Amino acid sequence: MAFEYELIKECKDTGARAGVFHTTHGDIQTPVFMPVGTQATVKTMTPEELKDCNAQIILSNTYHLYLRPGHELVKEAGGLHKFMNWDRPILTDSGGFQVFSLGDLRKIKEEGVEFRSHIDGSKHLFTPESVMEIENALGADIIMAFDECAPYPASYEYVQQSADRTTRWLERCKAAHKREDQALFGIIQGGMYRDLREKSAREITAIDLPGYAVGGLSVGEPAEKMYEMLSYTTPLMPKNKPRYLMGVGAPENLLEGVMLGIDMFDCVLPTRIGRNGTVFTRNGKLVVRNAEYAHDFRPLEDGCDCYACRNFSRAYIRHLLKAGEVLGIRLTTIHNIHFLTHLMQDIRQAILEDRMLEFKENFYQKFQR
Amino acid sequence: MAFEYELIKECKDTGARAGVFHTTHGDIQTPVFMPVGTQATVKTMTPEELKDCNAQIILSNTYHLYLRPGHELVKEAGGLHKFMNWDRPILTDSGGFQVFSLGDLRKIKEEGVEFRSHIDGSKHLFTPESVMEIENALGADIIMAFDECAPYPASYEYVQQSADRTTRWLERCKAAHKREDQALFGIIQGGMYRDLREKSAREITAIDLPGYAVGGLSVGEPAEKMYEMLSYTTPLMPKNKPRYLMGVGAPENLLEGVMLGIDMFDCVLPTRIGRNGTVFTRNGKLVVRNAEYAHDFRPLEDGCDCYACRNFSRAYIRHLLKAGEVLGIRLTTIHNIHFLTHLMQDIRQAILEDRMLEFKENFYQKFQR
Repeated sequence: MAFEYELIKECKDTGARAGVFHTTHGDIQTPVFMPVGTQATVKTMTPEELKDCNAQIILSNTYHLYLRPGHELVKEAGGLHKFMNWDRPILTDSGGFQVFSLGDLRKIKEEGVEFRSHIDGSKHLFTPESVMEIENALGADIIMAFDECAPYPASYEYVQQSADRTTRWLERCKAAHKREDQALFGIIQGGMYRDLREKSAREITAIDLPGYAVGGLSVGEPAEKMYEMLSYTTPLMPKNKPRYLMGVGAPENLLEGVMLGIDMFDCVLPTRIGRNGTVFTRNGKLVVRNAEYAHDFRPLEDGCDCYACRNFSRAYIRHLLKAGEVLGIRLTTIHNIHFLTHLMQDIRQAILEDRMLEFKENFYQKFQR
Repeated sequence: MAFEYELIKECKDTGARAGVFHTTHGDIQTPVFMPVGTQATVKTMTPEELKDCNAQIILSNTYHLYLRPGHELVKEAGGLHKFMNWDRPILTDSGGFQVFSLGDLRKIKEEGVEFRSHIDGSKHLFTPESVMEIENALGADIIMAFDECAPYPASYEYVQQSADRTTRWLERCKAAHKREDQALFGIIQGGMYRDLREKSAREITAIDLPGYAVGGLSVGEPAEKMYEMLSYTTPLMPKNKPRYLMGVGAPENLLEGVMLGIDMFDCVLPTRIGRNGTVFTRNGKLVVRNAEYAHDFRPLEDGCDCYACRNFSRAYIRHLLKAGEVLGIRLTTIHNIHFLTHLMQDIRQAILEDRMLEFKENFYQKFQR
C-alpha cells in the first residue's frame, strides 16, 4: 500500500493547497477537518451520521483505547474499523499528548513515559516501541509517532531536550512500526522558539515517512504566536506529503492554518462546545442554551442543510438542552461537525478556483470570534 | 374528524383482538406499544429512528411539558407534532399520575390537585378544566382525562372515593375539551377491588368517548393481581373502542394484556433499562454491561434486524456503556424499542392467523423473566 499525496492546486496568493491523500480505507480530499472519536466513537454520533456530515476521516485516541477496552480486544474484534463499524480512514494519535497531560501522574525517561491510568491509577509504560505495537493492533490508516508535546510556556532548554528526544523516538517508532497498510506520521515540535521549530522540522522531515504533523501548538499560546510558528515550519516541510496541524479546530484557526500550508486538522472543539449548548455559525458562535432563543423557531443556522437545521428549531433544541435530553447534544454536535467539514469543503473549492483572498475577506466580514 | 376503531379480528381462544384506530395523524394498527417521550423526545432517539423501529404512535407527558418548556410555547411552535418534528400520532397523558406521585408536594381537592414543581418548587393547580386547556394547546391526537391513580396498597374507602371523583372529573374534562381533532379517552380506576373496578368500568364507559383506558394497574401489585383486575374490567369495555392499559411494557405483560383484550400499551421500561445497559431478547433480558460480554462479538440478539444489531457487537456496545458514551445508550434504546414494536407486530399477526395459543407457548418456551 502506497500512501501517496497528490498536490492538486497551490493557491497563488497564500500558502493554501488542495490535494488528495490516498489511504488504505480510501481517499481524503484535503484540506480536511477530522472529527475526534476519543473512545472509538465520535461523541453522540453514529458512523452514518458522520458520513451524512461528510466526515472523510476520524481520529481516535491510543491512550484511551489502550486503557479501555484495550488494544488486544480491538485487535480481536478485527481492528478499530470493524469494532466501531467505520469503513473510512482513521487516524490514531500516539497517546503522547494524553500521558504528558497527566502531570504528577507521569515520569519521562529516555526509554519512554511511565504513567498512571486516570481511570484506576494502575501503572503503565509507553515507549516508542510499545506505542507502535498498540497502534499496529488498533489498525488505523494513519498512526502518529510517540512524541513529547512540551507545555506552554516552557524554557528554551526544556523544549530543546524534549524536541531532540522526540526525534530520537521517531527513529525508534519507524524501526518498530510493522504494518505496510498503516502510514506512520512524524511530529515536529520545538515549542515557541523559531530555531528549535526549524531544527525539528529539518530533522523530522529528514526521516522518510508518508506524512508529517506539527505538534505542540494550540497549547495555550495566542493565536498570532501559533501562526508565527507555522510560518517558520511549513516552508520546511515537503510539498509532496500531507501536513497535519494537531489539536486545532476553531473556524478562524482552520482558515489561517490552511493559508499557512496545512492540510489536516483535528479538534474536540465542535463536539465539546456542542455538548455545552454552543454551535458554530458563519456569524460566529451561538449559545442556543441562552434564554433569548426560547421562542426562536428558526433553525440553528439559516441556510444550513445539516440534519438538525433541516428538522428542528432553536426553541426545541434549547428545550432539549435545558431538560438534559440526549437528543439536544446530538443535534448541536451534528451541526458543529457539519459546519467544520463544510467550511473545509468551501475552502478547498476556493483554493481550486483561485479565490482564497476573497474567501478570507468574506469569512471575516461575517465571522465574530 | 371521526376517531373510529375498526375491529378486524377477534381471537377464538383468548380475548386478543386486532384492529385499526384512525386518528388525525394517521392509522394505528393495534395491538400497539407506544414508546414514551416524556419531555417531547423519546430519550436519545430521533423521529427517524423511531420510524425505523416502526413506532406508530408515541406518548408525551402533560405534567413535564406544562412545566418545561410550557404548553403555551409548544402551542406557539405550532403544537407538539411540529415542535418535535413527529408527524405520526401522539398521545398525551393528563399529568394525573405524575402529580399524585409527588407525595407531600401535592394536595387533592374536589376542584383539582395543588402541587409543587419538582424542578423549582413553584406552586400550581391542575383541574380537569386546566388540564384540558393544556392538552388542547399541546395538540396530541389522543388526550387522556385528568384522573386519580390510587396508590397500592390503598384502603377500599380511599379507592372508592378516588374512583368516584375520577368519574366526576371525566364529566368535567369532556365538558371542557374543545378540539374535535383530538380524541379524549376516559380512565377506569378502582384499585385492586373487583366491585370498584366493575363500577368504574360501567360509569366511565357510560360517558361516550372514542376510547377508554385502564389506569391504576402496574403500580407495584403482583402481575397475577393485574391480570385478575383486567379480567374483570375489559369484558365491561365496549368492543368498538380501543382499550389502553397504562404504564405496562414488560414483554410478558404485553402478551398477557393483549390476551385479556387490551389494544394499547405504553411504558418507560424499554428506554429506561436500555440506559442502564440492559436489553430485551426473545430469551429474556440481557445485561450487556456485564463482563461476560466483553469479548462477545455477536449482535445484541441473533436474527434481530434493528440498527444496533445490524451494525455493532455486544463487545462494542459494552465498551461504549462502560466508557459512558452516549452512542451506547442510543443503541440499547433502539434495540429495546424495536423489540417491543416487533413483538406487538408478531402478536398482531398471530391474532390475524388464529394462532395465539401457539404463539404464547413458543414465547414462554424461550422467554426467561
